[in-house]
Amino acid sequence: MRISFVGAGNVAWHLAQALEHAGHHIVEVYSRDTRNARRLINKLYDTTVALHPDFAESSAELIILAVSDDALDDVMQRLVLPEECILVHTSGTKTLEELTRLVDIYSDVPAHTGVFYPLQTFSRDVPIELTEVPLCIEASDASTESTLIKLAQDLSNVVYLMNSEERAVMHIAAVFACNFTNHLFSISKRILDAEHLEFDLLKPLIRETVRKAMEAPDPTMVQTGPARRGDRQILERHLDYLERYPAWQGLYETLSESIMKK
Amino acid sequence: MRISFVGAGNVAWHLAQALEHAGHHIVEVYSRDTRNARRLINKLYDTTVALHPDFAESSAELIILAVSDDALDDVMQRLVLPEECILVHTSGTKTLEELTRLVDIYSDVPAHTGVFYPLQTFSRDVPIELTEVPLCIEASDASTESTLIKLAQDLSNVVYLMNSEERAVMHIAAVFACNFTNHLFSISKRILDAEHLEFDLLKPLIRETVRKAMEAPDPTMVQTGPARRGDRQILERHLDYLERYPAWQGLYETLSESIMKK
Repeated sequence: MRISFVGAGNVAWHLAQALEHAGHHIVEVYSRDTRNARRLINKLYDTTVALHPDFAESSAELIILAVSDDALDDVMQRLVLPEECILVHTSGTKTLEELTRLVDIYSDVPAHTGVFYPLQTFSRDVPIELTEVPLCIEASDASTESTLIKLAQDLSNVVYLMNSEERAVMHIAAVFACNFTNHLFSISKRILDAEHLEFDLLKPLIRETVRKAMEAPDPTMVQTGPARRGDRQILERHLDYLERYPAWQGLYETLSESIMKK
Repeated sequence: MRISFVGAGNVAWHLAQALEHAGHHIVEVYSRDTRNARRLINKLYDTTVALHPDFAESSAELIILAVSDDALDDVMQRLVLPEECILVHTSGTKTLEELTRLVDIYSDVPAHTGVFYPLQTFSRDVPIELTEVPLCIEASDASTESTLIKLAQDLSNVVYLMNSEERAVMHIAAVFACNFTNHLFSISKRILDAEHLEFDLLKPLIRETVRKAMEAPDPTMVQTGPARRGDRQILERHLDYLERYPAWQGLYETLSESIMKK
């Protein structure tokens, strides 16, 4: 397939290289920051930097919008589409409908639309085994859907048809399991820092806890700790200590109660 | 060193085998459940099952209490110590003072006391590389301290002197980073289950999120998500959806506010 990218950030960085590696041709890369586009095409075989998001004369059959949610509206205002192309975004939170509406509003030519959402966090300098990354697909019509599924299967063993409502729920679940988890690590580190204890000491335990949770049929089955045991004495002692951090004391109480309710 | 164990659960299972492997002699294992003791000594070279916690005639120089916090008082009432031994517990939450007090109350002979706390979660069937597990040491006197440090260094590259107050703070930090994290995974799974979405889809993202947090100089530096971005629109949408789970809606709000305060 002939594919062009709008955006040259972390998602484009990994997707473009993986697609080329799977035998597809990355035709152009456009980015507001031309240096990013240039850095990406240096990793590709036969790709040019597009200086404007004008693909009227492009041979691309698929244009992948790999831009942040905030930038989507702006880029759609300036995007010029070729005839008969598929336009997809890579966002976990934007609906397919939103993209279709933006095409209707801003584009002179119609387009098939879709979502090509890799359920993973990317860093430019960290190689990711894309074959293990779930690719969530949604499309405006059946033929686009089958094209996107085939493309996704070239990259990953985990290809999933997921509509926008399901993707939204997936996102909420990810906020709990990933964003909030990361915040708990931050709190934990801050508590240790204050006593000059090293967060590094806790890392083997964190890694093993997560490993267990991921391998158990249900994380609830491997829940441990004072709240799980209903150990009021320890809970009280911890809450006393946390007097110095009122916000985290509240969090400790709320989370402990939530565990005890199970 | 000649070492006996009181308790034959997950901690004893791993510690006893590792200590024998490091060249020490495990003399006896006592457990309320004799089958557990028997199962453990089957893994050891020259160890007998003690049917009672009476070590008056034992040649052990060190007795390791690897029992749950709840069982400590009960076992101390029945424990008979040999002359001139070191008695340690393996608990993250019990203080050294509590152990010393129990010896004073219940034992006819005095003992050196200490803490030998592996900062890790153990499952009998999951092999653990003990060399990477932080061993937290505390002792009633300098000579016991140096004995325990030497012993710990036979097992692990990460040996740490930590007093009972520091251990308590470590425990609070672990509750945030491990127990609460596991609970967030449970909530996440429950949210997905309700929509017939697979928690497995989220696992690569969770693993990568944790990997990033563990490798960053501070997890705060890799915090992502709608709260971090201050994306009120998404936050409102998520809170709307969570109307059906009032407790988790409250948790979502508290955690998001805590992230935004940073």
